Amino acid sequence: MNAIVLLTDFGTSDAYVAQMKGVLLGEAPDNPVVDLSHNVEPQNVAQAGFLLASTLPHFPVGTVFCCVVDPGVGTDRRLVCAASQGRICLAPDNGLLSLVLERDANARTHDLTSFAKRRPDSSATFHGRDIFAPLAARLARGSSPESIGTRIDTSELVILEPACVSEKGDTITCRVLHVDRFGNAVLSLPDTPWSETLRGWNGIRLHDPEPGPAVRASSYTQIGRQTLDLVTTYAELSAGQAGILAGSQGYMEIAFNGASAAQALGLHPGDQVLLSPTSAFPAS
Amino acid sequence: MNAIVLLTDFGTSDAYVAQMKGVLLGEAPDNPVVDLSHNVEPQNVAQAGFLLASTLPHFPVGTVFCCVVDPGVGTDRRLVCAASQGRICLAPDNGLLSLVLERDANARTHDLTSFAKRRPDSSATFHGRDIFAPLAARLARGSSPESIGTRIDTSELVILEPACVSEKGDTITCRVLHVDRFGNAVLSLPDTPWSETLRGWNGIRLHDPEPGPAVRASSYTQIGRQTLDLVTTYAELSAGQAGILAGSQGYMEIAFNGASAAQALGLHPGDQVLLSPTSAFPAS
Amino acid sequence: MNAIVLLTDFGTSDAYVAQMKGVLLGEAPDNPVVDLSHNVEPQNVAQAGFLLASTLPHFPVGTVFCCVVDPGVGTDRRLVCAASQGRICLAPDNGLLSLVLERDANARTHDLTSFAKRRPDSSATFHGRDIFAPLAARLARGSSPESIGTRIDTSELVILEPACVSEKGDTITCRVLHVDRFGNAVLSLPDTPWSETLRGWNGIRLHDPEPGPAVRASSYTQIGRQTLDLVTTYAELSAGQAGILAGSQGYMEIAFNGASAAQALGLHPGDQVLLSPTSAFPAS
Repeated sequence: MNAIVLLTDFGTSDAYVAQMKGVLLGEAPDNPVVDLSHNVEPQNVAQAGFLLASTLPHFPVGTVFCCVVDPGVGTDRRLVCAASQGRICLAPDNGLLSLVLERDANARTHDLTSFAKRRPDSSATFHGRDIFAPLAARLARGSSPESIGTRIDTSELVILEPACVSEKGDTITCRVLHVDRFGNAVLSLPDTPWSETLRGWNGIRLHDPEPGPAVRASSYTQIGRQTLDLVTTYAELSAGQAGILAGSQGYMEIAFNGASAAQALGLHPGDQVLLSPTSAFPAS
Repeated sequence: MNAIVLLTDFGTSDAYVAQMKGVLLGEAPDNPVVDLSHNVEPQNVAQAGFLLASTLPHFPVGTVFCCVVDPGVGTDRRLVCAASQGRICLAPDNGLLSLVLERDANARTHDLTSFAKRRPDSSATFHGRDIFAPLAARLARGSSPESIGTRIDTSELVILEPACVSEKGDTITCRVLHVDRFGNAVLSLPDTPWSETLRGWNGIRLHDPEPGPAVRASSYTQIGRQTLDLVTTYAELSAGQAGILAGSQGYMEIAFNGASAAQALGLHPGDQVLLSPTSAFPAS
Repeated sequence: MNAIVLLTDFGTSDAYVAQMKGVLLGEAPDNPVVDLSHNVEPQNVAQAGFLLASTLPHFPVGTVFCCVVDPGVGTDRRLVCAASQGRICLAPDNGLLSLVLERDANARTHDLTSFAKRRPDSSATFHGRDIFAPLAARLARGSSPESIGTRIDTSELVILEPACVSEKGDTITCRVLHVDRFGNAVLSLPDTPWSETLRGWNGIRLHDPEPGPAVRASSYTQIGRQTLDLVTTYAELSAGQAGILAGSQGYMEIAFNGASAAQALGLHPGDQVLLSPTSAFPAS
């Protein structure tokens, strides 16, 4: 039985998630339902996209991911799905699938908006329960996206600004994709090839972009020119030493041992940070 | 297999919910167990009642709702259940079932307190695990309330003060039933008939009751005389404009687009608010 | 089908728990998975140990508890399991199993570290997903600890400092094991025999240890010499009166009726507190 995985910004205090599960129990009673997270920051599409992309390969082939972070509910935004690595991801067409598509050039995408039109009794404000859940149930029970909607080219989907990995001379510019409960800051640098690249450097410095309107002054101050130890596990870091490692989510992470890197360095999801080899700087 | 839905104020950090699930695994291993919410404010019976009533119709017929918000545990408060629309709701007799009964004149109620008396090994302080869970398991496996307890008249149950919908001239007085994660404030005005009624007005004003001991001054100040746009979706509201719409939970909701109405207007669960047609006021 | 119960400090906002469940769906698709708690304070091994020990007897025989509070991930800390009362507890060898072993002299323990060595593709930082989950799946499907690892003597496991129940004259010294959502403070005094012992006293006083480096001054001040009513249920306590009772978790608890004992008295997990019979003090 294909699993249905739920990813929303509904929180766990309201009845919204339970109402989706009630619909799923009615329409796909034998399919297991698993929570990915319901604590996505309200309407934070990029955060949901990261959680989805990093989790997708850890579920069995056939799993349907039902993603409802949907600031545009009630507008004419489309309802789309991407088939990637044998799993199906269902989401509003608002960029939530960007990272899944960035990682898989072979993903196939469909426009399933017409399904919503066949649900005239749907509420205007809660498509998660009234549209997404019954649609996920149908997909999990084996209906193909082709049988429900229309194939569209991947390039037609809304895509968030790319993760901004760029290189200028020796300097890499990237973004903080996520900060986890322990304060580890996941960077938009896939562990392949970046783990290898950084290993070739003779020391790693983390620094903020040049100050400017887009750069939070506080962040700049806190990072300064921090050196990062390239390690394999958190435990290798001595107290107070910032490190960088190939984390478990498929990306390079900035971490401390037993402390929050995000707090120590003032890093937040979405922040831009720069990495350079130590040799790029004059001795100081 | 009938589902068992859990609704408690136990939170998700302690082991209480898990211990209930352990009992259910032992006594009803084939019945799916779903969390409605465990983040009801400690001992907030009215909030639990709203979450239950709005969720009940979205689960399949046969579902058993096991509701444990139970400030009176250890006293002689009764253990009751209501059969409504083919579902069964199990709760302490403390008003938690008020809204379910208010919505369904055909609900049938039973006193199941005698079941507790047949569980002499129960702890004195955790009936959720020791009484409610085994009782929910038995109901979900098909035992009828009649076979376990005694039919009682609905009027014998503890009922919370009614939701206070009253009309005086053109003015409607109602209550805030719930504030959700997005700050939408659910009013005690069922969408039928109120959506239609409000549509007949030439403009809607939200205002506080006349100041008095029961009215929080801060709330009064924040609302002032707010006009509300009657809309169908959040997305129709322009930035900063308060709206009212038929929400997904079966009631009228006060909302902003992408912002918290509760925060902007100082609304809290339990607050009384008044609505009037704009024409009821002199031009200002 | 044996259940798999998850206990971690991963929180519910990140994807970590879901990724463990994805692995379990692949490797033990028919075994039910239940969350004990994922809100253990980051790296608080003692708290996890309490939640495990108090919950274990409430799940069916055969249940596998998969406990991942693992500050030493990536070091050479061992991976161990304890078979107790027909259930299996899997954990890093960091003291998490202390209380389970303290409660069951017949527990049998195994070193399963070799399983990790047979998983060369494991991430360095997320053994919960890459080692613990597949191992829990195998145990839940019926493999014995003997078939996977090596029997070791219970005394070889890391054990946290004992719960410090000591008696000196009439005075009992114990520790706060846990503070629950309602502010009840669970003491390291098993209800048997302590409920009976306290019943023999002519009044109970709660007081802090003599002030000293290990004692938080604020805590000392707040407790002073508090008298505790020995009761059976919270409801027996009058407003503002502190009580002590045999709680639902197998230990004596300090509680108020409808208020937080921990907040009123300044109690925190790990705090040492003293109990004496009132008669041990001069009238005051």
